[in-house]
Amino acid sequence: MISVAIMGHGVVGSGVAEILTTHKKKLFASLGEEIYIKHILDLREFPESPLADRFTKDFDDIINDLEVRVVVEVMGGLKPAYDYVKRCLKAGKSVVTSNKELVAAHGAELLAIAKEENVNFLFEASVGGGIPIIRPMSQCLVANIVDEIAGILNGTTNFILTKMIEDGMQFEEALTLAQELGFAERNPAADIEGHDACRKICILASLAFGKHVYPESVHTEGITKITLDDVKYAEAFGCVIKLIGKVKRLEDGRIDIIVAPMFVPNKSQLSNIDNEFNGIMVRGDCTGDVVFYGKGAGKLPTASAVVADVVDCCKHLKTRKFLYWADGNGKNIISTEQSVTAMYVRAKGSDVISKAENIFGEISKIEKDGTPDNETAFVTKEMPYGEFLEKADLLKNSGTEILSTIRIGDL
Amino acid sequence: MISVAIMGHGVVGSGVAEILTTHKKKLFASLGEEIYIKHILDLREFPESPLADRFTKDFDDIINDLEVRVVVEVMGGLKPAYDYVKRCLKAGKSVVTSNKELVAAHGAELLAIAKEENVNFLFEASVGGGIPIIRPMSQCLVANIVDEIAGILNGTTNFILTKMIEDGMQFEEALTLAQELGFAERNPAADIEGHDACRKICILASLAFGKHVYPESVHTEGITKITLDDVKYAEAFGCVIKLIGKVKRLEDGRIDIIVAPMFVPNKSQLSNIDNEFNGIMVRGDCTGDVVFYGKGAGKLPTASAVVADVVDCCKHLKTRKFLYWADGNGKNIISTEQSVTAMYVRAKGSDVISKAENIFGEISKIEKDGTPDNETAFVTKEMPYGEFLEKADLLKNSGTEILSTIRIGDL
Repeated sequence: MISVAIMGHGVVGSGVAEILTTHKKKLFASLGEEIYIKHILDLREFPESPLADRFTKDFDDIINDLEVRVVVEVMGGLKPAYDYVKRCLKAGKSVVTSNKELVAAHGAELLAIAKEENVNFLFEASVGGGIPIIRPMSQCLVANIVDEIAGILNGTTNFILTKMIEDGMQFEEALTLAQELGFAERNPAADIEGHDACRKICILASLAFGKHVYPESVHTEGITKITLDDVKYAEAFGCVIKLIGKVKRLEDGRIDIIVAPMFVPNKSQLSNIDNEFNGIMVRGDCTGDVVFYGKGAGKLPTASAVVADVVDCCKHLKTRKFLYWADGNGKNIISTEQSVTAMYVRAKGSDVISKAENIFGEISKIEKDGTPDNETAFVTKEMPYGEFLEKADLLKNSGTEILSTIRIGDL
Repeated sequence: MISVAIMGHGVVGSGVAEILTTHKKKLFASLGEEIYIKHILDLREFPESPLADRFTKDFDDIINDLEVRVVVEVMGGLKPAYDYVKRCLKAGKSVVTSNKELVAAHGAELLAIAKEENVNFLFEASVGGGIPIIRPMSQCLVANIVDEIAGILNGTTNFILTKMIEDGMQFEEALTLAQELGFAERNPAADIEGHDACRKICILASLAFGKHVYPESVHTEGITKITLDDVKYAEAFGCVIKLIGKVKRLEDGRIDIIVAPMFVPNKSQLSNIDNEFNGIMVRGDCTGDVVFYGKGAGKLPTASAVVADVVDCCKHLKTRKFLYWADGNGKNIISTEQSVTAMYVRAKGSDVISKAENIFGEISKIEKDGTPDNETAFVTKEMPYGEFLEKADLLKNSGTEILSTIRIGDL
């Protein structure tokens, strides 16, 4: 019997307790031992829970219990999760977390402590919810050099964009629907501003390229400026607009990492990933493109990924899984201005296309029905984003109003 | 330094040697030790190979070498692979194979020997080539009870069907093109008759449900009878025809397993998996649908999956990975006649629809342009396949010629 503690009894935490209870037989068959929930840490009371006798409000009950070998952190946020996780690792306990904010902010440090203490720090559930991605990347693709990762990493924004694309809803209307259906939180900023996706691509980039990438180093744009007009121009260009987290290894060894809405060509495997689903493409030098698809959030999908990590910790109580990256200083990341991309531009004014051709060189005008007078949209060739910004300024100075600009995803 | 031997220097075997050489640094970083190719077994000579000094034609050089801890079997076929693998395991060596025929025919026995000898028998590359599927299923989805697996498991047939669907090629023409491009072998029977897909779904079913499923127990149909007319009726019905390997857990604990061409609805994630790509959907009770997509074959994709298993064996020289299923007697598999499915029927004769309605009850007629006189196509409701066959006989006896029947995939 291996004793575990669960810190947090919210959506994911209660799911973890539920799966450890309902799937006891299957887990025993795989592990050959019983996993026993000894403590559940939560400040709230759950008198109706079948595990009511296990609840505690005191972290000391966990940290001081030598029998507890694995601690699950599903509180979310950094305080007190960061402090608690660090102390658990230092006390020789393996830790499993679903907390992307924690891993993105402190992953390198926590992995270093885990290495030093010869315990495990696992976080499969922090990216893609129930979709296996951390373990496949670190184990199945170990014989690959990763060239690129691109994914739809946030279900809330993907749901909103899908409603805009398929049902012609406005952004605000789709957001309200997402909130009603429980796909978006009352304060949706972390999702719609791209921060959640940013944390996830940081974790994947750190894992793939061996150096911690901090969210502050990553140019992050959300989807709040996307309009139905943009959605329709994208369609006319054979694309859908998706919020993409993307990291690419350049020839000089540096990486190009970004979170932004992008035009995704209909032929891309990512274009068909709709509603609240997530999809992640990993391009390995040997495998080519491998895509993982599924529900990126939700109680039981996420909890089942946490429990799989718990089982792995229990199997490796005396050995460490190889999951590690070094700290990073951001110097291996190119600036947004250096990042090469083609751009979609929607603009208003007279003679926009001929002005744009003078400034940008060859462009592709997007023809669509029902374009308002004076409005036009085009796609530039690939160029460094900094160069694009300078040229866009020239276009503005020529008396053109730029209504929106969106990257063309090379996906 | 850990010494390994590779049995077979064909497409996959030479890829394994190549990756172990070219990715030495990355593998060392993950494992903390060097993997040394000590022997390569092949009856042919490779004097130009940089590893020319490692070649042997004598299996005894491998089995008698106590330093060799991991043996890679990439010879294919059952003879002598089965005998060699068994002897390696019994000699206390871990074995990694990409040989689906071997795993489908003897997996339970070989896993039992590996368990007894406390060594590992891993076969990630046997299903889906470079797509991670065995490890994600056995580890990441361990906290799930698998309800269903459905996949496009054979790249050759998927390429042929894609050419029929997208370019309107006839079957024979598409097969010839596949052979020219190296996607199909000169003798394509194992692919186009469905045997290759059958071996793969047997491996996945054994892994998911814990009892060995032998290929002989699985109703297997290939794609040789699919015509362009069927492809066009499918399109008119909002579907594409794909060769699907599928296994489903029934309420009574038995399984329904089949390999057959099916109508796949356009909204299904499997409908967009085209050309030589594979895609596998695993439905877990907690995760919901998770889909894995990528190149299901090819030298480097497959070899990189083999090498990942080699690394895992090297990390677990003294412990066993949990990967196991018991032997099976086929009694947990329902008969094809019991399997419930809706059916597409293309038929010729007078008053086919009204006769069919009398026999099958409610049906959906498929309307498509350019239907020849006297020909019609319809889709029945779901019913046990045995009942369908009886009713189809009644339709034949009413003077109707049945031109083709295809299952409607509930995917």
